[in-house]
Amino acid sequence: MSEPSLDSAPGDLTPAEFSVAGHALIDWVARYLADVEQYPVLSRAAPGDVAAALPAAPPALGEPFAAVMADFERVIIPGVTHWNHPGFFAYFAISGSAPGILAELLTAALNVNGMLWRTSPAATELEQRTLDWLRQLLGLQPGWFGMITDTASISTMLALAAAREARPELAIRSRGLAGRPDLPVLRVYTSLESHSSVDRAAVTLGFGQDNVVHVPVDDEWRMRPDLLGELIVHDRARGYLPVAVVATVGTTGSGSIDPVPAIADVCERENVWLHVDGAYGGTAAVVPELRSVLAGVDRADSFVVNPHKWLFTPIDCSALYTRRPDVLRRAFTLVPEYLVTNAPDEVVNYMDYGVQLGHRFRALKLWAVMRVFGALGLADRIRHHCALAHEFAGWVDADPEWHRVAPVHFSLVCFRSVARHANGDPQHEDAITAAILERVNAGGRVYLSHTKLGGRYTLRLAIGNLRTERRHVEEAWRLLREAAAAITDEA
Amino acid sequence: MSEPSLDSAPGDLTPAEFSVAGHALIDWVARYLADVEQYPVLSRAAPGDVAAALPAAPPALGEPFAAVMADFERVIIPGVTHWNHPGFFAYFAISGSAPGILAELLTAALNVNGMLWRTSPAATELEQRTLDWLRQLLGLQPGWFGMITDTASISTMLALAAAREARPELAIRSRGLAGRPDLPVLRVYTSLESHSSVDRAAVTLGFGQDNVVHVPVDDEWRMRPDLLGELIVHDRARGYLPVAVVATVGTTGSGSIDPVPAIADVCERENVWLHVDGAYGGTAAVVPELRSVLAGVDRADSFVVNPHKWLFTPIDCSALYTRRPDVLRRAFTLVPEYLVTNAPDEVVNYMDYGVQLGHRFRALKLWAVMRVFGALGLADRIRHHCALAHEFAGWVDADPEWHRVAPVHFSLVCFRSVARHANGDPQHEDAITAAILERVNAGGRVYLSHTKLGGRYTLRLAIGNLRTERRHVEEAWRLLREAAAAITDEA
Repeated sequence: MSEPSLDSAPGDLTPAEFSVAGHALIDWVARYLADVEQYPVLSRAAPGDVAAALPAAPPALGEPFAAVMADFERVIIPGVTHWNHPGFFAYFAISGSAPGILAELLTAALNVNGMLWRTSPAATELEQRTLDWLRQLLGLQPGWFGMITDTASISTMLALAAAREARPELAIRSRGLAGRPDLPVLRVYTSLESHSSVDRAAVTLGFGQDNVVHVPVDDEWRMRPDLLGELIVHDRARGYLPVAVVATVGTTGSGSIDPVPAIADVCERENVWLHVDGAYGGTAAVVPELRSVLAGVDRADSFVVNPHKWLFTPIDCSALYTRRPDVLRRAFTLVPEYLVTNAPDEVVNYMDYGVQLGHRFRALKLWAVMRVFGALGLADRIRHHCALAHEFAGWVDADPEWHRVAPVHFSLVCFRSVARHANGDPQHEDAITAAILERVNAGGRVYLSHTKLGGRYTLRLAIGNLRTERRHVEEAWRLLREAAAAITDEA
Repeated sequence: MSEPSLDSAPGDLTPAEFSVAGHALIDWVARYLADVEQYPVLSRAAPGDVAAALPAAPPALGEPFAAVMADFERVIIPGVTHWNHPGFFAYFAISGSAPGILAELLTAALNVNGMLWRTSPAATELEQRTLDWLRQLLGLQPGWFGMITDTASISTMLALAAAREARPELAIRSRGLAGRPDLPVLRVYTSLESHSSVDRAAVTLGFGQDNVVHVPVDDEWRMRPDLLGELIVHDRARGYLPVAVVATVGTTGSGSIDPVPAIADVCERENVWLHVDGAYGGTAAVVPELRSVLAGVDRADSFVVNPHKWLFTPIDCSALYTRRPDVLRRAFTLVPEYLVTNAPDEVVNYMDYGVQLGHRFRALKLWAVMRVFGALGLADRIRHHCALAHEFAGWVDADPEWHRVAPVHFSLVCFRSVARHANGDPQHEDAITAAILERVNAGGRVYLSHTKLGGRYTLRLAIGNLRTERRHVEEAWRLLREAAAAITDEA
């Protein structure tokens, strides 16, 4: 073991170097946020382009941060798809807003692990407080326990683990699921339109993908609660054990809203855990006149909404709520001696409520966003996005060459081409719709994604970026029609 | 639906406001990093203090970012336990280094979701490249597939899910574990000293906590591979199915190193997945003369090391490696239509390899840290921490009032009081040791944590912060001896 040699070695930036690099970085980010529209929204990098521009081995000697920034601009930026671009309409469009971005710097500087109350009381208490603020913004009743996780995938998985633990007499936590003749098949119910994270959570937890029952939807892509009830009764008759139902407020495919009150009726009757996935759509409830989208959610056992989706908070920030924190805690708590503290029993130690021991101080960014926007500012932005979507939907509806395929409840519009020269042939129409998408996305001005609804190829225009204005939506519409015309000409 | 009213509403910061707030923030962080030593390392907040200082309801109107910063300093900072303080010796001490902190700002500004290659080719390719750099730094062979996750808890859970999927003939992914008379009990093996995340992963995946077999350790807290082999044979004879072994390089309790080569022999003979948890200790291998700590790891199926633990990368950044990415992918891949892209088959879509769909651009900070420190700079810092730990261990060894209870392989020293007035009574010694810890931590200059080793209350001094110098370790030692003397006087 050689002697300490800290002073002679390359290493961390000095405070002065940090300051210089930091100020330059703020200038870069300020320019980026102002000029992001200048970049092609969808990266034009070919597979391997970025990797080929990076050395195969790490540097032996340290380099100035400015060298990293130079390579960031030269190598990384051309390989970035700009989620913060106002022309980003794919998946669910998101925003890293300024207060959220700045707060991330604080989170990194403090570098707190909020696993225990004691390891930063402010991390735990600010998280509890900001999630209660968010609950109020959404118009939900008091009595919800909130925790920030990284993703809705994890939030939903934790909720389904709690649902499994809600039957302690099965001793699943201690004895597991395998090799137990005493255990029935466990089943989870969700709609045909729910997010893939439900299936993935069921696979992870050992339910098995075959035991996710996808309940049919009505003609507006909503779960049919009558069929849910029948499927549960049918499964019970086969000896299966229904464990949980996952309803969705704002499905990924079409933004549909499952009828949560009727689903809650079924769950209460059947004594099944109800989890509501409002990762995207739940946020709409910050707009008073849209608050009804969360009707019935107060009767659920758990609920997830993602501030990093439509509440202007940088990735990652998912808010998991449960009315039964005791059950969630029972599913996961496990305190080895090296994590024992003498903090009073009333404090929350977030490590007790999930898989992850490490707990980032994510509440800071959500707090900064809520403070800087204010409740009215948040509502105004969401309302604005919805208004733009309705306007776009109107243009689609007025054009006989296009067909809208789902109601617009939020800021997502689903539509497809019904170009005349396809003569109503579904396969031909789908091929044209796909070709339009390809052409529009290649242009670099806007980026849309697709799904299938009822088996038909469907375009999705999702509005969620703070910088998206009416002119960007108009441009998307113009580019879509131009692409359609060009394809018609080529046909 | 009211008309769009973006211009009239409060909302995001303007570019000019961002710039002003950002520069002020850089100055704050620069001061914080330079002056962090001025704060009490362990927060003195009482339960509820922080919450009580925060309004019960969110603000209706937006506020300037400066107001958030003022409350951050007034309300949040007193509730922070300063993980970036040079006197932080608890748990595993960590560092958010300057390049990592700055890169987090870029990550937040880009706000990329790297779920698919296409949704930011640079996010995927930089992650692959930086993890290959890290592999080289650790002296591991080529052929490892790397992915960044948020925590070692998740990395280990994904590894154990892959282990479960390594037997596709059991159809666990599709059919699950419950209600299947054809499935045996599934078992996971790890040492008595392994991290609680192993148990938690086993609970989550449906193995059950009772099916985590904790193999006894030798007198240096290392798993006994002979007993591991016997336990596996014994379980097979009972009809159980051994699925995975988790070995640890650098246990949380004592920093012990399981004999991975001998464990790999057992796993190969028994055809069991071997996962190595090097979340903390694995990093030591960046020091050439410590590279042997990872002996045998190239024979494992999966391996985790956390750059956010001892590689100066802000939380969260865990590196999961596997030599069988096809199996990991099979365990999780699930591509709904709305995530289908026409990217070529050879690209990696990270969403296929885990629970989480959302994928933060964490590679940026790891890249920045490796670039700014360089391989030699990283090795120098780790070497320095180890040297300080060895020096501290020497002081403990030389003092008859203290007893060191584990070898020092890394930067962790485990020790307890053997104060004369306890007369060798274990209970009395443990009570004194606990009282010393309480008194030292209350002082606010240093923060240590504890564990139990062999049932005995044990103090842990973990060195991992970049700002920790010899004088901080000397101060810890002085404070420990002063506390011991004060307690002796009071007795």
